Amino acid sequence: MATMSDPRELLLHGLRDVLYAENLLVKALPRMSREASDEQLAAMLDEHLAQTREHVRNVKQAFQLLGKKASAEPCPGIEGIKAEHDQFSREEDPTPQVRDIFLTGAGSRAEHYEIAAYTSLLTLARSLGERDVVKLLEANLREEKEALRKLESAARRLGKVARQAVAA
Amino acid sequence: MATMSDPRELLLHGLRDVLYAENLLVKALPRMSREASDEQLAAMLDEHLAQTREHVRNVKQAFQLLGKKASAEPCPGIEGIKAEHDQFSREEDPTPQVRDIFLTGAGSRAEHYEIAAYTSLLTLARSLGERDVVKLLEANLREEKEALRKLESAARRLGKVARQAVAA
Repeated sequence: MATMSDPRELLLHGLRDVLYAENLLVKALPRMSREASDEQLAAMLDEHLAQTREHVRNVKQAFQLLGKKASAEPCPGIEGIKAEHDQFSREEDPTPQVRDIFLTGAGSRAEHYEIAAYTSLLTLARSLGERDVVKLLEANLREEKEALRKLESAARRLGKVARQAVAA
Repeated sequence: MATMSDPRELLLHGLRDVLYAENLLVKALPRMSREASDEQLAAMLDEHLAQTREHVRNVKQAFQLLGKKASAEPCPGIEGIKAEHDQFSREEDPTPQVRDIFLTGAGSRAEHYEIAAYTSLLTLARSLGERDVVKLLEANLREEKEALRKLESAARRLGKVARQAVAA
């Protein structure tokens, strides 16, 4: 086992982790969109898929700027968040309304994971003076935060609808 | 498989999920604190352990308010975040400085997971008019956000130290 003494190695480790997470979401988002009954929610997930493909390109470019070949490394964090979604789909039989609310929560967990990852990477890249890498990571982080805000707003809207249904 | 048609069931499902996550962190935080070389970081993790024990009590009280027995349900999301930490510790041999920076990232991921969970639960509890449950969840969410801010601040401080070490 080689000693990791250079923070730059930790930056590369984190980039491999987040590249895996973004690649996983490129596959997961179309499925989540198909599961959504609410049209606005489905459209939001589709829109974020296009952004996620761009994020993959940005992370690959960050590797290039650091003089390294882009590679992904299995990321148990995002795997766990995906497993949580899959387990719910397998073990519960939610109505479309309940499933939509669940999907906003599952999506928020994925966004929060990525926000944590990019925030840590940004702090490290700034410390190391990697300005061009910082710009790419900032662009990704901005869109993850925006996607989270939209999911939270959808959750509030769907929650109100659910309340009316319960009251009816 | 029983159909989940009541958003209240989803609220209970989420409470079981977050209770598992909080219980897991009660066990994981002391280990993370021992791994930390930076005294401020270790103290912060210890302080958050005390808060986490309080969060467990609050979630159990939320079950009580909803007339249900408190129970936890394995939560693959937080398990994945823990597995990510364990894998790094097993496969890498970081210097104390690199490990400390890694720990701020691992801690941030756990905080973000909980922030996602509590935010979703709060939206649902508000929709269902469960005001006392809302108060308990708000108290937990506030402390998770504060713990995240402290971890992010520690990451910036440790990053600066790392930069000086690289430059020296």
